[in-house]
Order: sequence, then C-alpha cells, then structure tokens
Amino acid sequence: MINVAICGATGYTGLELIRILLKHPRVKIKALTAKIDKPVKISEVFPELLGTFEMVCSNKLAVNDVLKKGIDVVFLALPHKVSMDYVPRFLDKGKIVIDLSADFRLKDTRIYEKFYGKKHLQKKYLFASAYGLPELCSARIKKAKLIANPGCYPTGSILGIAPLLLKKKADLNDIVIDAKSGVTGAGRKAILPLHFSEVNENIKAYKIGVHQHCPEIEQELSNAAGKKVSILFTPHLVPINRGILTTAYVALKKQAGLSELVGLYKTFYKKAPFVRVYDEGSLPEIKNVTGSNYCDIGIALSPDKKRCVIVTAIDNLLKGASGQAVQNMNIVCGFPEATGLV
Amino acid sequence: MINVAICGATGYTGLELIRILLKHPRVKIKALTAKIDKPVKISEVFPELLGTFEMVCSNKLAVNDVLKKGIDVVFLALPHKVSMDYVPRFLDKGKIVIDLSADFRLKDTRIYEKFYGKKHLQKKYLFASAYGLPELCSARIKKAKLIANPGCYPTGSILGIAPLLLKKKADLNDIVIDAKSGVTGAGRKAILPLHFSEVNENIKAYKIGVHQHCPEIEQELSNAAGKKVSILFTPHLVPINRGILTTAYVALKKQAGLSELVGLYKTFYKKAPFVRVYDEGSLPEIKNVTGSNYCDIGIALSPDKKRCVIVTAIDNLLKGASGQAVQNMNIVCGFPEATGLV
Amino acid sequence: MINVAICGATGYTGLELIRILLKHPRVKIKALTAKIDKPVKISEVFPELLGTFEMVCSNKLAVNDVLKKGIDVVFLALPHKVSMDYVPRFLDKGKIVIDLSADFRLKDTRIYEKFYGKKHLQKKYLFASAYGLPELCSARIKKAKLIANPGCYPTGSILGIAPLLLKKKADLNDIVIDAKSGVTGAGRKAILPLHFSEVNENIKAYKIGVHQHCPEIEQELSNAAGKKVSILFTPHLVPINRGILTTAYVALKKQAGLSELVGLYKTFYKKAPFVRVYDEGSLPEIKNVTGSNYCDIGIALSPDKKRCVIVTAIDNLLKGASGQAVQNMNIVCGFPEATGLV
Amino acid sequence: MINVAICGATGYTGLELIRILLKHPRVKIKALTAKIDKPVKISEVFPELLGTFEMVCSNKLAVNDVLKKGIDVVFLALPHKVSMDYVPRFLDKGKIVIDLSADFRLKDTRIYEKFYGKKHLQKKYLFASAYGLPELCSARIKKAKLIANPGCYPTGSILGIAPLLLKKKADLNDIVIDAKSGVTGAGRKAILPLHFSEVNENIKAYKIGVHQHCPEIEQELSNAAGKKVSILFTPHLVPINRGILTTAYVALKKQAGLSELVGLYKTFYKKAPFVRVYDEGSLPEIKNVTGSNYCDIGIALSPDKKRCVIVTAIDNLLKGASGQAVQNMNIVCGFPEATGLV
Repeated sequence: MINVAICGATGYTGLELIRILLKHPRVKIKALTAKIDKPVKISEVFPELLGTFEMVCSNKLAVNDVLKKGIDVVFLALPHKVSMDYVPRFLDKGKIVIDLSADFRLKDTRIYEKFYGKKHLQKKYLFASAYGLPELCSARIKKAKLIANPGCYPTGSILGIAPLLLKKKADLNDIVIDAKSGVTGAGRKAILPLHFSEVNENIKAYKIGVHQHCPEIEQELSNAAGKKVSILFTPHLVPINRGILTTAYVALKKQAGLSELVGLYKTFYKKAPFVRVYDEGSLPEIKNVTGSNYCDIGIALSPDKKRCVIVTAIDNLLKGASGQAVQNMNIVCGFPEATGLV
Repeated sequence: MINVAICGATGYTGLELIRILLKHPRVKIKALTAKIDKPVKISEVFPELLGTFEMVCSNKLAVNDVLKKGIDVVFLALPHKVSMDYVPRFLDKGKIVIDLSADFRLKDTRIYEKFYGKKHLQKKYLFASAYGLPELCSARIKKAKLIANPGCYPTGSILGIAPLLLKKKADLNDIVIDAKSGVTGAGRKAILPLHFSEVNENIKAYKIGVHQHCPEIEQELSNAAGKKVSILFTPHLVPINRGILTTAYVALKKQAGLSELVGLYKTFYKKAPFVRVYDEGSLPEIKNVTGSNYCDIGIALSPDKKRCVIVTAIDNLLKGASGQAVQNMNIVCGFPEATGLV
Repeated sequence: MINVAICGATGYTGLELIRILLKHPRVKIKALTAKIDKPVKISEVFPELLGTFEMVCSNKLAVNDVLKKGIDVVFLALPHKVSMDYVPRFLDKGKIVIDLSADFRLKDTRIYEKFYGKKHLQKKYLFASAYGLPELCSARIKKAKLIANPGCYPTGSILGIAPLLLKKKADLNDIVIDAKSGVTGAGRKAILPLHFSEVNENIKAYKIGVHQHCPEIEQELSNAAGKKVSILFTPHLVPINRGILTTAYVALKKQAGLSELVGLYKTFYKKAPFVRVYDEGSLPEIKNVTGSNYCDIGIALSPDKKRCVIVTAIDNLLKGASGQAVQNMNIVCGFPEATGLV
Repeated sequence: MINVAICGATGYTGLELIRILLKHPRVKIKALTAKIDKPVKISEVFPELLGTFEMVCSNKLAVNDVLKKGIDVVFLALPHKVSMDYVPRFLDKGKIVIDLSADFRLKDTRIYEKFYGKKHLQKKYLFASAYGLPELCSARIKKAKLIANPGCYPTGSILGIAPLLLKKKADLNDIVIDAKSGVTGAGRKAILPLHFSEVNENIKAYKIGVHQHCPEIEQELSNAAGKKVSILFTPHLVPINRGILTTAYVALKKQAGLSELVGLYKTFYKKAPFVRVYDEGSLPEIKNVTGSNYCDIGIALSPDKKRCVIVTAIDNLLKGASGQAVQNMNIVCGFPEATGLV
C-alpha cells in the first residue's frame, strides 16, 4: 500500500483521480488540496462522492502539511505554470511526483517559454523528468521520480501516429492532425467561451497550428522517428463532456495495403493493455472509450493508398489525464500496469 | 408571383423549404407531397407550423395532380434514387425542377452508379442540369430548367477550396478535407445509429475516402482547377442538430502570407451575398451561421506557410440544402438572389 | 417608422431584440449600449450579425447620447436592479421604455425588496408601469409609457393558468407549477454553474418555492382570480439552449371534462395571435416554439378529473423576453400586434 | 461464485448488467442471448467491451441451451409482454429469475391488462414474485425465486414518497409526481421520436396520468400507506442519455418543519447503502448519481409548509434498472447488498 496526495483536487482531473484511486487496491488517499476559499469536504465540491469519500480538501498547498501525511506519491493536477513551483519541493524530499501540467513535458525550455509565455525556472528538474506515455516510454518511466503526464491531445495523436514513424513508413513533413475535444478538456473554469449556450449546438476550430500541444506532439513524434517531425495540428471544441476523437492524416513514403497497416499497429500494441487496434473496416468512436483508460485506434487509407488516416479515441480525463497518471503510478511503483484501471 | 410544389415535404429539408417559402414575397406554395400513409395536414407532422400553415400534404407524388395546381417550380426533397424517376416527368411538362437529391449532380454516370449503387436511367436530363452552387455556377443556373442542388458537405468544401484552385495556388493532389456534421444531415430516418443515445456524447468518423460526396467535391474542384483534382475526405457525425464545420487542408504551390490569402478570398467572394470571409485571426463557428443561408470562411496557415487551412461553416439545412435551393430558384426566376433569404 | 435604442445589447435578449427589430418594417435601431470595456461593433460580439448589422455598441449607457439619436422607444435589457436607475431618466424625457428587467413588475415594493434584495427607489414610476403580458393586459399596455416586460417563467405559467382562474374553475390554493428552462434563461454570464460540463447531461431543481418569479406569478394570477392566489413553483435547469416547458397542476373546484376545458382555453385565446391551444390528446413540446413568439398550450386531466394539467411551451428568449417586448412595442405604438414577429 | 445468464443482452440495460457483473467478485456470466439476426460477439454490438469481454451472444433464447450452462440466476432484460413467456420456464427448473420487465410487478392482473394491453397468462407466478425495491421490500426479496425489478420511474418516485406515507405524514389523495427522464429510459429502439434531432433541444411531457408506471407507483405507495393512494404522474423526456430527476409534491396532513422532515428521511434510510438523503438546503442533481447505484433525495417545503417537495435523482440504467437488479441478486444470493456496486 502506498499513500498519495492530490493537489488540485477540485478540477475535473482531480475528481477523476479520486474516483480511480478510491477503488485502487494498493493506494490510500491521504491529502487533498486546492485553490479554494476555505477548507471543505471534497464531497461538498463533488456531491457524487457523498457517503463514499468525505475527506476535507485543504485550501492551500502547504507542502510540509502534505508531507506530514506520510505520502509516497504526489499527483499535481495544477494549472500550467503553477506546477513548476511545487514539483521541486516534493522531489527534493524524495517523493515521486506525477505532474499533470505541461511544465515538465517539453525538453526545450525555449519552446516552453514561447508556447506557455513564462520563463522556465526549474530546468534541472525538467531534464530529470520522464514523459509519461507508457506505451512508448515505459523504460524511462520506471526509473523516474518525476513523471510529466502527457497532454490530452498529445496522447491521442502520438499513440495514433508513432507506430508509422517507428516503422519508417511515414513522410515526416506531411502530417495533418485534426482533433475534436469535449469541453472538460478546457478545464473547470468559469469563462464565457465555456458557457453552456456558447458551446452547445456549436463546433469551432481554434489555435490552428499554434496550440501549445503542437510542440509536445512534435517532440515525441520526433523521438519516435529519430528525426525532426513537423505537424499541422488543428484542435476543435465539440459539445460533449468527455472524449477526444483524433483524425490524423499521414502521407506514406510508399503506397501500402490496409491489412498490412492494421497488422503493423496490432503487432506494435500487442502488449499494451490500454490500446485497442480495430479490425479493418471498423473505426473508433468516442462512446466506446468513455469512462475507460483505453485508446482505441482505427486505420483507413485514402483511395490512392498514399495517405493513411488514423482515427483514435480516448477519454480525455482518463487516458488523456488521470487514468494515464495512475497507469504511470502503477509502473513507477512496480504494480501491474492495469491495476485499478479496469 | 410564382407557384411552387414541394415533394418530400415531411423531411427536415422539406420543413425548411416551407419555412423559407412562407416568408418569400414572390412565392406561393401550392402543393405538398410525401411518402406517408395517408394525407395529413403538414402542421400535424410539424406542429411548429400550427396556425401558420395548415395545407394538406398528399400521401403520394401524383405528378398530374401536382401539375394541376398550376405550379411553376417543383422542389424535389426526395431520397437519392427516387428523385430520378420524377425529374423527367416535371421537366417534360416545362416546369423548373430544383432537385435536392444527388441524382443529377454527377456528370459521369459510372461514378454515380459506383457511389449510389443504382443504374442511372435518365442520362439525357443529367446533361441538361446545372450544378446549383450559385457562387461558382450562376451563369449555367440562370439558363437551366433542372438544377441539381449541391450536397451539404460539398457546399462547405467547394466554397472553401475553389478560390485557391481558380487562382492556381494549390497543389491539386494534396487536399485533405475533415468535415463535422450535425445529425439532420443524415435525414429524418428511424435508424439505430441516429438514436439520441447513440449520437449524444459521441463523435465518429465514417466512410473515410469513400463517402458519396467525394466525387461530387472532386468534380466541382476539378472544374475550378481545370484539371483533375483528388481529395481525401473524412466526414464525422457530431451531436448537434444543424451545421457543418469543414476544416480543409490544402498544400500550396509555394509559401503564401495570410493577409494575401485572406485578401484573395475577400476579393473572390466580394459580390456573393451569402459568403462571409473572416478577417485574419478570426475563424467561423457553426453557431454564427445557424438559421441563416451564409457560408462563413476563415483562413489560417500552417507554421511553415506551406499549407492553407480553410475553415467553413454552414447550416446544412439552409446553405447546405433548402436555403441554397431557394437561392437557386431566385436566380432561375430572375428574382434578386437574396430574396426571402435574409 | 420609429427609432429605438437597445441598452444591454450584448446579452442573449439583446441579440434577439436586434434580430427581430432588423426585420421589423416599422423600426430603425439607432443606438446600442452595453457594459463592455470599450466600444465595439456589435458584429464582433455576435458574429452572426457580420455583414448584416455592424453598428457600434457603446460601452456606457450615457442617457443623453442615446437621446440625441432621436429615439422613440428604449429597450432596457439590463440586469435587475440596474434598470431601476435608468428607467426614470428616459421616462422623464417622454420616451417609451420597455424594461426587460424585473424592476417594475412587482407592484408591492416590500415583496420586490424581499426577493431581489435591494431597496426600491423609484416607486412612483412603478405605479405608472403596465405589466406587459398582452394576452391579459393589453388595455393598460396601450396607454403606458413604461412597460414591465414579464419574466420568462411567469409568461409560460400565467398564460397557462389564468384562464382557469378568470373562469372561476380553480382552487386558488392548490396550484403547483413545475417548470423546465433552457440555459439562456440564466443569462450570458461566466459562472461555474453555467459551464457546459456542469449543465450538460444534468438536470437540477433550484430555489424551490423561493424563486423571484414566484411573487410575479402570484401577483398576476391574483389579478386574474380577483383574490389572493398562492402557488408552489419549482424551476429546473435543463441542458438545452432555449425554451421553457411548464407543467402546471391546478386543482379544480369541481370535476371537469377535457373537451370542456380545451374549449374554454380555445375560446379564451381566440383572438391572441401568439397563443396556440392544442386539440385534445396533443401536448406542446419546446421544439414546436423554438425561434417563434408562440406560447403553445396543451391540456390534460388527472384520472379522477379533479386536477387539470396544463403544459405550456415558449421560447424563453422570444415570448419569454425579446419577442414579447416587441409585441408590447407594437401595441403601445399602435402597430398591428404581430408586426415583425411572424 | 454463481453463474448467471443475461437474456436481452443487446439493450442498454443488458450492457449495464454486463458491465457490473464483469466486475462483480461473486459472479460469472455464462450466457448471453438477444433477439438478433445471428450470433455475434457481444463486443461487436458494444465495442466498449472489446478486449474485455467477447462472449458470443446467442440469437435466440433457447431455454435449454441456457440451462445447460449451469446457471444459477437469470436476468431477463426483455421487453414487456415477452418476459412473461420465459419466466416460468426458468422458474420451473429451480432457477432464480430477476425480471427487468413489468410483467410480474403488478399484483392485479386487470390493471396489468389495462395498462399493457395484453392478457396476463402467468398469474400464479405473479403471486410468487417479490417486488424488487430493496429499501422497502428486502424481507420478501430474500425469500423470492422471482424478483420483479422495479421500473425506472417507480424507483425514484417510491423511494422519494414512501417514507412520508409510512410515517403517516401525507394526504393520500394529493400527490403530484413530475418526472424528467433521459432517453435510454425509452430503450434502444429505432423509432422516429427517439431520433437525435427530435429529442435534442427539446423537452416534452407525455402520457399524463396514463403512463404504465402509474399503477406500479400507486401499488407500492398504497402498500406503504396501508391504504389506497392515488397519484398524478407526469413523465417528461429530456435530452440527456441517462438519469431521472423526480420532483414530487406531497400535501402534508399538517404543517411540518424542514429539519423534521429531513430528519425523518435520514432516519428512514439510515441503513440503506444506496440512498443518500441531502442536508437541508441541498438538492440532488442527476450528475451526482450518473454511473452509480445511488438514489439521492432532497427535501424542500412550500412557503406555507403545507406541501413537501421531494426531489430524487437516479441513474435510470443503474438504480432504475440493472444496478438494482444486481442489488436484488446480492440479497437473494446472500451476498452483502452492495457487492460489486460501489
């Protein structure tokens, strides 16, 4: 049994961490914190927890108070740029940190600073971190003390495209990613663009080519390819609570057959407990993964067989955030990878 | 004043035709027909019309009965493959036919037969038809007796991409179209995939590269380019009632600047009353066009400036169907193009 | 032709006023104001207006500036408690004011102060105002300079119940109203309870028996009954953009037949252009009134025939707000009541 | 460990039974059947089960084939009127049957025949059945071989109202129930009224006072009261996938205080693991129970304290169907009541 703390417990990813960890056979939640006015029972924030879990959530992230609870692992579900300040303070005390923010994902701080608009003040910790996409990075994750849990869009994009790059099938400069996300991906913030009536019965594209997840996807795809990969990434906001459907268009170096490509993906993900590659002719849908830690992948081809279309579906709050965070915890703690997640 | 009939009045496009034409200052609706069990007041099918319009809708499309009403224009809002049988019978009597089905859109009947799975039996009428996209084809529309009203996906796709082709800016073999459609685009049919709980909180891609609207888009884009154009088209079903957002990715022959491209589109659509080109930095959203006949267009560029991203938004039932049908009627009847549509 | 100003133009009711008045044959919009940071074209706030209406919206409500535009009628789509300060300043200049806030609806200021939590400082104007429900109050509206446009819940509730009271059919102390409202009814405010993911896939009751619309409904029903009427009113928030469905349960003084009751309503609303009473066996649905100024009414009976169930449907932004405001303007200006509304 | 079969596995309640039972530590699913064209893997019907559960679902309910699998308990998730034919055949073999249909809920077959329009041919089994609402009927459930699992509306209604009746607080003839249900409550049927675009952005009331769940609610409330209880029940269809919010209005025999009533409910449900009574001032919302087996209950009072308003929230597919079915299985099999459900 290990003890964990969740910092940033009142957001959507915080709630999902609580839900998963409450049923996890090897974990005990010992502390909750959030930026709130005063301490409250977490079940007052999320009444779905009434009767099940009524721990008080602290209104400030006092690192020493959290440490006093005897915790082994800290989940930081904090906003970007806030996390940066807290990660070192837990790491320096020998704790394992699983950071759901973007602060330790990008290895090149100049890119971080460009896309997140803030100086990166913790470079040394950055280089000690592992990018937490288990299907591609488990060797590093196992040995890491700091895990930079991937963004939601990158998870669906990278899992969908990396196999083609690792197997040298793709043109590295002709990759288009068109992603559609549910609204929880934007967080639990009271801002007009997330007002029900602004989102409902609407779809919009935003930040075309300049979204902060672009460099994260490019970094990991470049790692997979062994060379610099450029993508064109367009996110869209869609009126559903949860889920991301990613449709990726990858030019192939040479024409390929559909069964060959499906076979490639099935082989590649053979041992991955949370990736399901669909048979030829079937495509993932968001509802197939809602509430689960799966990333579903389906493959299609353009009529001229020169371009591969990869469709992936994830629950943005699970495989795209909190589920993957627990998957990472399992790996780093030596538990079976799927513990508490199926 | 002209008299019109609407055949297929009980579908979603039928209802929109009724709504628009009831307010059209130059039109009188004289007949409604639909495939129903027995004649009913149309306000029983669509109670929104109660007190406003209570014409009886006939339960069979008896051409002579319709003709007896003294009609000038027939709108056929019939299913694909059904329309084919009725178009000639109205044309032969000298009536103007605006056909909302796909039956007379594709000039190459082999392609029609491949994508619609039925022999085309009315080839001579096909070649007399005009493809009803006013922004590109108004010269032909003006003189036509049969107007093949465009499909919903093609409308948003062609209006978004054609300017780049006409201006010779685009690589003809590197066009990816990722479209997201509301559910009325699939029609008012009782089938399980359109059940509320199958669609709600879900998104799916379907018919990747093989959708019947592919060849329609390619035909018109090829006309614009003066050469064969191939596209890769992926439609998605999204849980909203109305609207299509199309995100098109077009490789440019050479790098271009955003202001140049926005300028190109603004100039191109200067006189089009129903196309709105957005300023740099703004992108269309479905809610901006819901309930209107507009096609909104926004332009973005990939970071390397080699690929243009065109986002278009239409209301699939209006600019993507019934609104455009009335726009075509206005043109063919010599009314100002926007009559009854603003 | 008259000239109007809309104060509070950037909310949902402001947008609807603009939409309606742009098509109104007797009206010219001369001024827009809103609480915004700096003046902007209204089409930047609501891109649906692009190309159609690009008037600049002022960022402050400077009464003299508005008056300088030569306006005849002012629509105040301001928050409750704010309106109060502006109404007198326009009235004192001889302008007609149509106030969409609650500030001049309740005749008893003690009740206003209890439910709205603010001292009422403009009592004399209050008594000069007409409650703007045309189906019941048109005589007063015709002569008024200040019209207190009804709340959205009261419109659906009062129109549904008043005929039973006027015809002395109802027990005045056994009236339960269960109303379900779309989210625009709560306004265009960035607050967490209106975040898409808090509202979507959810329904909740709120302010049971203590909602600020209770006394408004009771005031008007008491006027109809000629005696004090008490109601039990429960509003619910439902994940749709627009519309209120009201289900009212009214104990009858004595058993009644359904056809008698339907007949009573049909007779009562015979001349009301915006009330549609359904035939026996049919019930209103929100989608039948969306986008229109209708209030649809359906009648059912309990199995013991002792309780009448009245279901009403309105579009909360139209008959429940801006449509009704224009209906009131028509009446007070001597235009036909339905001008610009059908 | 017990073995179970699920007949009617391809509906929404079938899927939920599978999901719950797959994680239930004492159960093994041995057989699935459904009315389908040919046998298929259940994961083809519900791809969310891919990789998790790929049992073949038989296309016919051959009782002997099912029995051969060595089953102990049969869940019948069949349509009303179909279930009736199968219940006896399993019971006669000594199996425990948990019937999710309405066929064995109503003790008075004349009422069954009136509301379901079919002769009841299995009266003797009817009288042997237990109504499966554990919070009120656990004594009978424990000893039963046939459990008539309650309807979704009755579950939320009865749990909300029964305590007032058992404690003699309520007027038995002045009970109004206004319920709002998500669309899965209507089943997984391809019919036009359940088409996405007919339900989305809409709310409607239906079957006022004549819904088939009325007599079921009255039967159980009468049992609670010890006297005949009449209700007025109005169901509404609301555009969400899952959940029922029930707002019940119950006249009190005499005025009561809110804290007294909340206390009464808290005491009454003290030992019920799946009922959560809210503190004064808080009310349930559907999202608080989605995905759980809870029935949440909140209490309010009319301003005159003469009428109690009880709001209950359940997930119609769990506490309103499959979750409750497993709760009943736990009771009848002697497992702790909450096994596999939290």
